[in-house]
Amino acid sequence: MDKNRFAVTPPMGWNSYDYYDTTVTEEQVKANAEYMAAHLKEYGWEYVVVDIQWYANDAGTRRQEFQYIPFGDQEMDEYGRFLPSPRRFPSSAGGKGFGPLANYVHSLGLKFGIHIMRGIPRKAAQMHCPIEGYADTADNAADPSSICGWNPDMYGVRAIQAGQAYYDSLIRLYAGWGVDFIKCDDICDSWMYRQVPFSGWEETRMIHRAIEKAGRPIVLSLSPGPAQIERAWEYGRYANMWRITDDFWDNWDLLKAMFPRCELWQDHVKRGCYPDCDMLPLGRVGKGFGAERSTGFTREEQKTMMTLWCMFGSPLMIGAELTLLDDWTLSLLTNRDILKLLGEGRQRCQIRRTDAQAVWKNWDEKTEEICLALFNLADEAQTISVDVQELAEGYDGKETLVLTELWDRQESRQQGRVEAKVPAHGVKVFRIRP
Amino acid sequence: MDKNRFAVTPPMGWNSYDYYDTTVTEEQVKANAEYMAAHLKEYGWEYVVVDIQWYANDAGTRRQEFQYIPFGDQEMDEYGRFLPSPRRFPSSAGGKGFGPLANYVHSLGLKFGIHIMRGIPRKAAQMHCPIEGYADTADNAADPSSICGWNPDMYGVRAIQAGQAYYDSLIRLYAGWGVDFIKCDDICDSWMYRQVPFSGWEETRMIHRAIEKAGRPIVLSLSPGPAQIERAWEYGRYANMWRITDDFWDNWDLLKAMFPRCELWQDHVKRGCYPDCDMLPLGRVGKGFGAERSTGFTREEQKTMMTLWCMFGSPLMIGAELTLLDDWTLSLLTNRDILKLLGEGRQRCQIRRTDAQAVWKNWDEKTEEICLALFNLADEAQTISVDVQELAEGYDGKETLVLTELWDRQESRQQGRVEAKVPAHGVKVFRIRP
Amino acid sequence: MDKNRFAVTPPMGWNSYDYYDTTVTEEQVKANAEYMAAHLKEYGWEYVVVDIQWYANDAGTRRQEFQYIPFGDQEMDEYGRFLPSPRRFPSSAGGKGFGPLANYVHSLGLKFGIHIMRGIPRKAAQMHCPIEGYADTADNAADPSSICGWNPDMYGVRAIQAGQAYYDSLIRLYAGWGVDFIKCDDICDSWMYRQVPFSGWEETRMIHRAIEKAGRPIVLSLSPGPAQIERAWEYGRYANMWRITDDFWDNWDLLKAMFPRCELWQDHVKRGCYPDCDMLPLGRVGKGFGAERSTGFTREEQKTMMTLWCMFGSPLMIGAELTLLDDWTLSLLTNRDILKLLGEGRQRCQIRRTDAQAVWKNWDEKTEEICLALFNLADEAQTISVDVQELAEGYDGKETLVLTELWDRQESRQQGRVEAKVPAHGVKVFRIRP
Amino acid sequence: MDKNRFAVTPPMGWNSYDYYDTTVTEEQVKANAEYMAAHLKEYGWEYVVVDIQWYANDAGTRRQEFQYIPFGDQEMDEYGRFLPSPRRFPSSAGGKGFGPLANYVHSLGLKFGIHIMRGIPRKAAQMHCPIEGYADTADNAADPSSICGWNPDMYGVRAIQAGQAYYDSLIRLYAGWGVDFIKCDDICDSWMYRQVPFSGWEETRMIHRAIEKAGRPIVLSLSPGPAQIERAWEYGRYANMWRITDDFWDNWDLLKAMFPRCELWQDHVKRGCYPDCDMLPLGRVGKGFGAERSTGFTREEQKTMMTLWCMFGSPLMIGAELTLLDDWTLSLLTNRDILKLLGEGRQRCQIRRTDAQAVWKNWDEKTEEICLALFNLADEAQTISVDVQELAEGYDGKETLVLTELWDRQESRQQGRVEAKVPAHGVKVFRIRP
Repeated sequence: MDKNRFAVTPPMGWNSYDYYDTTVTEEQVKANAEYMAAHLKEYGWEYVVVDIQWYANDAGTRRQEFQYIPFGDQEMDEYGRFLPSPRRFPSSAGGKGFGPLANYVHSLGLKFGIHIMRGIPRKAAQMHCPIEGYADTADNAADPSSICGWNPDMYGVRAIQAGQAYYDSLIRLYAGWGVDFIKCDDICDSWMYRQVPFSGWEETRMIHRAIEKAGRPIVLSLSPGPAQIERAWEYGRYANMWRITDDFWDNWDLLKAMFPRCELWQDHVKRGCYPDCDMLPLGRVGKGFGAERSTGFTREEQKTMMTLWCMFGSPLMIGAELTLLDDWTLSLLTNRDILKLLGEGRQRCQIRRTDAQAVWKNWDEKTEEICLALFNLADEAQTISVDVQELAEGYDGKETLVLTELWDRQESRQQGRVEAKVPAHGVKVFRIRP
Repeated sequence: MDKNRFAVTPPMGWNSYDYYDTTVTEEQVKANAEYMAAHLKEYGWEYVVVDIQWYANDAGTRRQEFQYIPFGDQEMDEYGRFLPSPRRFPSSAGGKGFGPLANYVHSLGLKFGIHIMRGIPRKAAQMHCPIEGYADTADNAADPSSICGWNPDMYGVRAIQAGQAYYDSLIRLYAGWGVDFIKCDDICDSWMYRQVPFSGWEETRMIHRAIEKAGRPIVLSLSPGPAQIERAWEYGRYANMWRITDDFWDNWDLLKAMFPRCELWQDHVKRGCYPDCDMLPLGRVGKGFGAERSTGFTREEQKTMMTLWCMFGSPLMIGAELTLLDDWTLSLLTNRDILKLLGEGRQRCQIRRTDAQAVWKNWDEKTEEICLALFNLADEAQTISVDVQELAEGYDGKETLVLTELWDRQESRQQGRVEAKVPAHGVKVFRIRP
Repeated sequence: MDKNRFAVTPPMGWNSYDYYDTTVTEEQVKANAEYMAAHLKEYGWEYVVVDIQWYANDAGTRRQEFQYIPFGDQEMDEYGRFLPSPRRFPSSAGGKGFGPLANYVHSLGLKFGIHIMRGIPRKAAQMHCPIEGYADTADNAADPSSICGWNPDMYGVRAIQAGQAYYDSLIRLYAGWGVDFIKCDDICDSWMYRQVPFSGWEETRMIHRAIEKAGRPIVLSLSPGPAQIERAWEYGRYANMWRITDDFWDNWDLLKAMFPRCELWQDHVKRGCYPDCDMLPLGRVGKGFGAERSTGFTREEQKTMMTLWCMFGSPLMIGAELTLLDDWTLSLLTNRDILKLLGEGRQRCQIRRTDAQAVWKNWDEKTEEICLALFNLADEAQTISVDVQELAEGYDGKETLVLTELWDRQESRQQGRVEAKVPAHGVKVFRIRP
Repeated sequence: MDKNRFAVTPPMGWNSYDYYDTTVTEEQVKANAEYMAAHLKEYGWEYVVVDIQWYANDAGTRRQEFQYIPFGDQEMDEYGRFLPSPRRFPSSAGGKGFGPLANYVHSLGLKFGIHIMRGIPRKAAQMHCPIEGYADTADNAADPSSICGWNPDMYGVRAIQAGQAYYDSLIRLYAGWGVDFIKCDDICDSWMYRQVPFSGWEETRMIHRAIEKAGRPIVLSLSPGPAQIERAWEYGRYANMWRITDDFWDNWDLLKAMFPRCELWQDHVKRGCYPDCDMLPLGRVGKGFGAERSTGFTREEQKTMMTLWCMFGSPLMIGAELTLLDDWTLSLLTNRDILKLLGEGRQRCQIRRTDAQAVWKNWDEKTEEICLALFNLADEAQTISVDVQELAEGYDGKETLVLTELWDRQESRQQGRVEAKVPAHGVKVFRIRP
């Protein structure tokens, strides 16, 4: 199996976290999947991902104190593998796990994903659970000095045979359910404990191997970020996508901060290998966090976000509750010209970045079609200008360029430079033909 | 209670770790106490300290793999407080804890100490144990993101009322047994996790308060090191001694490295407040580690160690199995002139340090008696020399000084300078009278 | 010479920087000295210090671009030692240096100080100037890889004989002028170049030795800060005062930030050894910076500053132009009760610090007189309270305490605790008698 | 101009540093160029590079004390641009610079390179030299706070118009001489001053722009390393090669350390963009350093070095004095099969690395020819083995592979795996045909 064929373009889908936090239920997942099948699938959206704590029976019950309840009530099989909470995912009862829900999602022509935490449940280690298919127990596979700093559920897995055996048993179970996508958390960046040897690097390799052994093309997505640039080649070797940012939310400072991140990672976007800018907090978000709201981004900022993610080549995961999408948001997610920037054969690079503006180029290797995005990072409108010599080598500045702006579809002609007035925090993105 | 009166000079005693590792038994502790009472007490030695894992029934049984067995078999009361393993400390059976052993040590005219790990047992949190005397449970007092990086037994204690209540209950129990000295581990330096907020600083204050509440003058000793110099005032406020080094063993590199540590901490030795150079790995050590041996230090190095610890003002904790002491080692531990350097009213400072030599001065504030130690840190013998002007302000260099070397008791006279040929890794320490 | 006798209490004086920046002239210095002699001397104020760039003929002429003009017009003798600019200090003409001005200051019963930069002029090295009294040239004493990051005048001095000889020649010259105080800059903290070996540590020792050789009791003050706590013993060995903060100015954030700095250094205030909170930006300041103004501190903040500096034991250097002092500011500088906190035999410690309040205690070792300062660090008025048990060991809480507030002189009686309503950013400081 | 066409494969040449240090002369450069033309040119070797201090008249005269004499005797034109020392490069007399020598090298069918230090001469700033073609002076272009930590010649250049003008004037002069290659030093890594903003990043861009303006295809090589991986995209944008290591010499520890460096940078080797493993210290080296010797590498280590540099795609710069090359060394430099690994259209990646071994693959995109290098990093001979599945996706393990070892030319056949016994520190590199 070549993991670079699991996702030949950046994965596109929906994830439960931004709206539901830890609390999503089967019914809610199905409603979102149905919406996607009906309205988004034709544009390339296909993954439906259940995010963190689906195994917690008490998820959300002490939200004032804890996002993740320490030593809480978790569903686990006898082999120390978390199972969906049957209270929240009724079809999982009787040991069927996510099989029935995955089947349903598949029946809609979509793919099904889940979130896992790196490691083995602390409870499994304390209880000395057996490892399925291997003659050892969880306490020996667990590394009690490797924990997640923000989630109390797991211990890290030792890079020994018992550890690989545990991950093999886990991925085997989840592949058996029909899982197509695994977002593995607490594994991409050890920002909590930078000075201790971080077992996550070894665990990434073990999970990759477990997927290869399981034989199912499961896309492997690593969280949280920021990923470490000095490990760029390693993420690309074992995973399909890796977060280059810590959790992204709907505020301008975070969006502006994504520009240097994309600058940093621009040389690392390749087939099957995607630096990941995180979810799109559009539409309605925040309910599970006790702060339901429409996205805090202005419309200009929303276009900026969609444009940057696509120019750069990031995966796209919608954070909004899909059943509540308004027309504006839907239009953002269904602009074929913009989504085409993610397509096969596209190249991209940053042309310029200052504190006040950024310019990106995205072109088709074969057709030589060029798209140019002028981002205004300042708090006032400004005119942004690029000499045609910066665009591509052939130009001598005398050509008349025919420009199509990809959001408002307006056409214009320019000579010598591409120039536009861009609103504060906004973007103009042009397809250019000589 | 003023904790600075608990120990008006640096504590002196014996600790089970260097010889027994995690495995010491009641019988062995008693034998060492008896030896101390018979041969060392008259020189000021008084503490008998049971080090780490006295609550582990299985301590030492998987020594090839683990010093501390993860998820092992530990003795604990219903309130989540560790108790001595009755297999190893038979007198503790029936819930009597260390009471009978402490009584025995007291009956010899000595004091009794134990080791604890910062925190609350992981098992107690997982089991939701009640806190004695307080209406909450251990899972709420425990901080699942605060662990020790090398010992898997505990979670950190949150700085909330439930946390203080847990520590109060713990110290109350141990004070009730007659404990005089607590060596608290994983609390003095967060070297494992320097970049996360370390709950140990709060826990130090909580334990200090718990001792004050318990009303028993328990000496509080903090481990491991190196302590952080920027917290010097804080250690001194809450504890009696704190380790300025990571674990110290019998090799020259570690001993040589103690010189810059003592340089750094020289202004912080005060009544009731002692930067701690760690145990004296003399005589027979290493049995519990599977490497029983006589100390790896040469005799010159042993004198260097004893002299530095005493010139500087460190606590002295013997690592040797006392019942196996030879005459030479005993003579090191019973040199009254050297031990007197630890006495009340002594001042000390480093005069000079290079990579090759160090010179320290220790004087009596009232009598103005001066002792001068010339340490040879190089691998060859060398002559070390100090101008009398560096000794004290009154000298003009014309006095004839009468010198007594405190190890070989030889007298000599010198003028203008104090100078001596010092063997490699060795020391000459002179008492000086004009 | 024992440098700890040069200043048995924290030095108090005036410094030209806060008002004049680099531009002060002889006439201005004299006017401030005369004011001090007439109105402040009787309260203990005695040093008159000429700060940075007194050797620059062109100081201040390109202030829009540069505070310190690179490769500018500097007055220097043939031995590579800076001399006062005769344009600005006319009495220095003819090679007399600061001798005449120092004489004048002495004639007023005051002491005279100057600022120097660590190092040897870059110009002297480039010109290969001879070293006075030593057979070598400046290019060999200079270390071209050791520079100041913010001032372009000097190279560091190598710790070799030629280097010591240069410093000897420099201090000899300045001692000959009658200099009583040297504020040496770029030497206390290597914050610019933390990862390269910083020659300033060696240079501190060389300057100390040069002062001892010169035989004049020159107070040595080190800048800028924050000094490094791990070098606490070293500053105290070689200098009289050292800055624990970077440049301090009249804004609340900097004043609030001084509380943790004083917490950190509280154990290091000793006779002849003073951690230094930097100048008092009171009254009229900022003219040379192109921003002349009255201090930005509120009156409450000004009292907070004066109280903290005195409770803690910092040197006091007035930044205001003295000839423009108003009555209020003068009253701050002449409160004998507050200034007495700096006196001989005083002890001090912080009792408590949170983000919202700080409590300090300052007591007389012999009389046992206690002063207690309650600082409100919050932006709203609040009541601050201290249990008498925290004050001193003898109290049982039943005594009636007689309190005198040292700013408003009001008396009150309290029992069991000391409590007061304190304005935002303000302080109440009580002298307590049982 | 597209700088990625200046060097479509990694540059290959000779550099004077390893043998001559700072002292090379015109005659010596010519002798090496002549040797290259006669014996190496046909294999692809073409650059002849004069390394550091060619402008110093006194280079090497105080070698016991200084590699670079502070404030020494340097040849400079009136515009503050260094010129070759006419004592050492007689043909440069009369202001002709390196023009005559460059012509001579070109006449041999080779290319000519020089070393420069980032910045503007300190002397030029102190003397306020005019900038050629621009109405300002060197003191204003120089940044007196930006220096090199190990070489005392220069100040950094400010990123202002006067700074760009200085670099333009410099490159214009050097391009006029016929320079084809510039090795710019003190610019690739700010390891001396990591915590200060490093002006070298701006200076890289300014030099790149100056080359574009000069219109001559000058290869730009950046030193020293290790380059910072987070700037990978930036080096590639402005330079042709950049050092990924600090100075490399002939000892095994440095060679072994190159493996993790190559691992780190493996994704960044592209046409016109070459991470640089530094010079090849083969044959006779060290004379100018006072330590003339034959390389300290064993023959196995020499093959390991040549193989790694070529598998990875590093530039190759010979450090040996060419006129003293022995047959063995010459054979290393003229192995066409090995040098072919640097050719156009080659791909490379590391297959595996542990402390004891490394395996690299280098293949031709079009012909699918695969070369596999098995490196033994351990101190004992060992058998190293690679499953054919790891080689390329098509293989099923049943093919008979025909292997040619590229150093000893031996053929062999293997099935299922590629396996070889490899000597300590040695390599076996196989060309593989199914």
